[in-house]
Amino acid sequence: MANFKGHALPGTFFLLFGLWWSVKYPMRHIWQKRQHGSRQNLPLFFKKIDLIEGVLKTFFAFVGIMAEQFVPDGPHGHLYNGEWVKLMNWQHSTMYLFYGISGIADILSSSPLPVPAGLDRLSLSLALFVEGFLFYFHVHNRPPLDQHIHSLLLVAVFGGAASTMLEVFLLDNTLLELFRSSLAIMQGTWFYQIGFVLYPLNGKEWDLENHGNIMFITMCYCWHYAVALLIVGINYSVVCWLIRRFGERHRADIEISLRKTSHPDSNSQKALLQESDEE
Amino acid sequence: MANFKGHALPGTFFLLFGLWWSVKYPMRHIWQKRQHGSRQNLPLFFKKIDLIEGVLKTFFAFVGIMAEQFVPDGPHGHLYNGEWVKLMNWQHSTMYLFYGISGIADILSSSPLPVPAGLDRLSLSLALFVEGFLFYFHVHNRPPLDQHIHSLLLVAVFGGAASTMLEVFLLDNTLLELFRSSLAIMQGTWFYQIGFVLYPLNGKEWDLENHGNIMFITMCYCWHYAVALLIVGINYSVVCWLIRRFGERHRADIEISLRKTSHPDSNSQKALLQESDEE
Amino acid sequence: MANFKGHALPGTFFLLFGLWWSVKYPMRHIWQKRQHGSRQNLPLFFKKIDLIEGVLKTFFAFVGIMAEQFVPDGPHGHLYNGEWVKLMNWQHSTMYLFYGISGIADILSSSPLPVPAGLDRLSLSLALFVEGFLFYFHVHNRPPLDQHIHSLLLVAVFGGAASTMLEVFLLDNTLLELFRSSLAIMQGTWFYQIGFVLYPLNGKEWDLENHGNIMFITMCYCWHYAVALLIVGINYSVVCWLIRRFGERHRADIEISLRKTSHPDSNSQKALLQESDEE
Amino acid sequence: MANFKGHALPGTFFLLFGLWWSVKYPMRHIWQKRQHGSRQNLPLFFKKIDLIEGVLKTFFAFVGIMAEQFVPDGPHGHLYNGEWVKLMNWQHSTMYLFYGISGIADILSSSPLPVPAGLDRLSLSLALFVEGFLFYFHVHNRPPLDQHIHSLLLVAVFGGAASTMLEVFLLDNTLLELFRSSLAIMQGTWFYQIGFVLYPLNGKEWDLENHGNIMFITMCYCWHYAVALLIVGINYSVVCWLIRRFGERHRADIEISLRKTSHPDSNSQKALLQESDEE
Repeated sequence: MANFKGHALPGTFFLLFGLWWSVKYPMRHIWQKRQHGSRQNLPLFFKKIDLIEGVLKTFFAFVGIMAEQFVPDGPHGHLYNGEWVKLMNWQHSTMYLFYGISGIADILSSSPLPVPAGLDRLSLSLALFVEGFLFYFHVHNRPPLDQHIHSLLLVAVFGGAASTMLEVFLLDNTLLELFRSSLAIMQGTWFYQIGFVLYPLNGKEWDLENHGNIMFITMCYCWHYAVALLIVGINYSVVCWLIRRFGERHRADIEISLRKTSHPDSNSQKALLQESDEE
Repeated sequence: MANFKGHALPGTFFLLFGLWWSVKYPMRHIWQKRQHGSRQNLPLFFKKIDLIEGVLKTFFAFVGIMAEQFVPDGPHGHLYNGEWVKLMNWQHSTMYLFYGISGIADILSSSPLPVPAGLDRLSLSLALFVEGFLFYFHVHNRPPLDQHIHSLLLVAVFGGAASTMLEVFLLDNTLLELFRSSLAIMQGTWFYQIGFVLYPLNGKEWDLENHGNIMFITMCYCWHYAVALLIVGINYSVVCWLIRRFGERHRADIEISLRKTSHPDSNSQKALLQESDEE
Repeated sequence: MANFKGHALPGTFFLLFGLWWSVKYPMRHIWQKRQHGSRQNLPLFFKKIDLIEGVLKTFFAFVGIMAEQFVPDGPHGHLYNGEWVKLMNWQHSTMYLFYGISGIADILSSSPLPVPAGLDRLSLSLALFVEGFLFYFHVHNRPPLDQHIHSLLLVAVFGGAASTMLEVFLLDNTLLELFRSSLAIMQGTWFYQIGFVLYPLNGKEWDLENHGNIMFITMCYCWHYAVALLIVGINYSVVCWLIRRFGERHRADIEISLRKTSHPDSNSQKALLQESDEE
Repeated sequence: MANFKGHALPGTFFLLFGLWWSVKYPMRHIWQKRQHGSRQNLPLFFKKIDLIEGVLKTFFAFVGIMAEQFVPDGPHGHLYNGEWVKLMNWQHSTMYLFYGISGIADILSSSPLPVPAGLDRLSLSLALFVEGFLFYFHVHNRPPLDQHIHSLLLVAVFGGAASTMLEVFLLDNTLLELFRSSLAIMQGTWFYQIGFVLYPLNGKEWDLENHGNIMFITMCYCWHYAVALLIVGINYSVVCWLIRRFGERHRADIEISLRKTSHPDSNSQKALLQESDEE
């Protein structure tokens, strides 16, 4: 869909997933550190969240495919009638297909089936790779700025594919997960940027041949990433702060109830206090 | 052999190996998980299978070399008579040669000789690398679609070489082995696709200069991979299901025989039942 | 700032950091080896040093941004007035921005906050990557030698980004840290070299089209690295030698005081002597 | 030195080192496996060998530099007299310089000084990288076959640099060491091949523009590697076989002497026999 909406749609998907990941992974990281404490039912909670994420991803991928196929100027499921029909839309559908596969792998990984560990991350890495692969052969015969702005996207896409591939072998590395979140956010905002530049809402067309525009866009890409890092940093801090506050109140409650029940034996209280000092 | 058969032959080899691997590795993976159980003779069984695989690989490589050399329009072992004789066939022979070396390395690795661990995977990685290396310099001076369809192959070939190289250091990583299986299946089906496009059986020639054809082929490559993933997924599931069924019946038999012999001591039965719950 | 000073400024920054690292990391390495000994307050000392380093890095980055913006021929904070204003300076500012982010990450990592391990190294790797990324698109439409001398810089920059990324996963690997030091020193000296070649102080202009000059500069780059290795080697040796000397005198003092206080029990003395033999 | 000898000299160096490594590493690998046995003085023996290797490498590098500088048509230490003097020879000298640095690092690593582990491998990797780096910018403006035959060398050089870099983190991985040996042997034989093609001894000049020649040379490169693999394989087998023979006779001697001295207590004999069964 070569218009603003066609870029805003995937942009929104990536932005939502990036933002969600930048909340989920700090949450899991901090709760994992506290696992020595009282709650043991958290892993189950995260399994359920992963399941919902997988279902949503599959659903979004399905929406994306349908949108690409059945928009008024789409191929409506026709591939060849003497010549190829709307190959751009077909290519976008293929990209969504692999995100759908990644969603299914997420669902399987969060199910109790004997799936090899890391399948979800491998399939996400493949989805990113396929996206980059198709984009790479996507941008021939276009004006310089159009080509450049699309190929910059490849840095985030292949960077994400590589770092997610690393996650297959370094399971649950928080830093890599946050890195992935930041790349997803950047991909999201960059899709919007592409939309704004190629299909400006205010009608002022960009000069697609101007070298200054290309230089600005290159730098602008770095600014997007700086903003993505800032967002991830803020979300991480807020999640940390919230869990600490909630955790302390929760702990205080437990402590009070402990004091009421077991006056003479104060060992468990000490253990809890020591624990809160450590953190 | 620049005809349909010349592409169908290697395609069949890769397809067979890919399919076989997508059955072998899930089998080994699940049996390894159960190793805490009763059977200890399985490693030997898999050693024997690896030996047979190595012998077959060496044999197929030999067949490939002979076919390239002694087809009617082949070089029949002549390399230079004033000018180079049939260098294409010689290059293909060289590719088969390295798969032959890989087969010999498989045989050595499954033998009781003191071979360094991972030799079989390193030599397979080298064979894939040599294949990609020769293909890379293979496609100059050809029409765009011919070049493109061959160079797409390189993604699977070098991807396979890289992931197999990783396996040298991450021995028996099921996910990597399944990944290799899927790439081998894709390579197999893609050789057929190349055959169908360049030497169409129904006689309708493809336009090798058309940009739409190139775009379609790029996308088609991704579809091949989606199908390869589907095949690996199905094989994995079927193997899982079969082993579970067979395993349970087998266990039930053991249990019955145990009940008959050792009535008072029911500990071993409990242990077995617990084991089947865990899985 | 397209003049000698504009290259001397970043060159000095990199040189200082490279030299400092080539002193800090050997120091930490050797003290870590001795940690079995008496001093336990060293980690705190190194935390403080890392904090100061982070503050200085952030400050230098701020100085760099201000210098690029408010030199007489700078953009003074203006980005667009009908056309893009001084994009070169803006790009340099962006590079400094990411080093500033890296400095803040250093400060956070050396603080007691629950920051994921390796954040400082990841952000340094990103800063190097962004520097290389912007330089890569920086050098179009320039004379051959100018392009070549800038693109050689990319080898050190991307090499540094890759090796620092490795450090994220191999925390506190002395060899990688020394490698990073040597690359930082080379980057520093190479910025000076670029300044000398493009804006010669003695007024003798280099022929920017001459192939011999390009060949010499390529080789000269390797010499810079050989010198950087030599500097790191010397600093490592000097630090080793100083710590050994200081450590032995310190130990001798302890020994004497031990002899005075605890004559009959000579076990602790023996332990100390054994320790010094081991090292 | 643009003649046959100028290629035979480095070729001989690489060939000798490759052959030596393909004997040394199997030896160390097998003796390490036997370390549970009687001999404890072997590590010292290998340290001494590494020292000698480092000294020889430094000496060869020195010979190489001298040869490049002081051959009749060399630069004799002059670099610039209005224009650059014999830059080719200077570049070759630079390559040798880094192998010299690698030799010094070998000497330091095998000394009792507190050198970080892996320094010898890192510096060898750097020497290979610098060789590849200089060759990469070395081959402009030459006929196609000349360019191609030199750039093929880069595959072995950068492959060796990458695999040696891996060795820094996977110390004493026999497979990687054998891989490095095979690449060194190939580099050696390929230098000879370059010499034979560009400066044919029988006077029959190769057509440097012919596409068939390029195709043959590409394939020939793979054959060189197949031969290198064969040589490494043979050396590995011979070393294995010799150590086994020598080891068994040595053990038999020990056993006899044990029987003579300690008749009643046969435990140690049994342990020895078990040991030889295990191997």
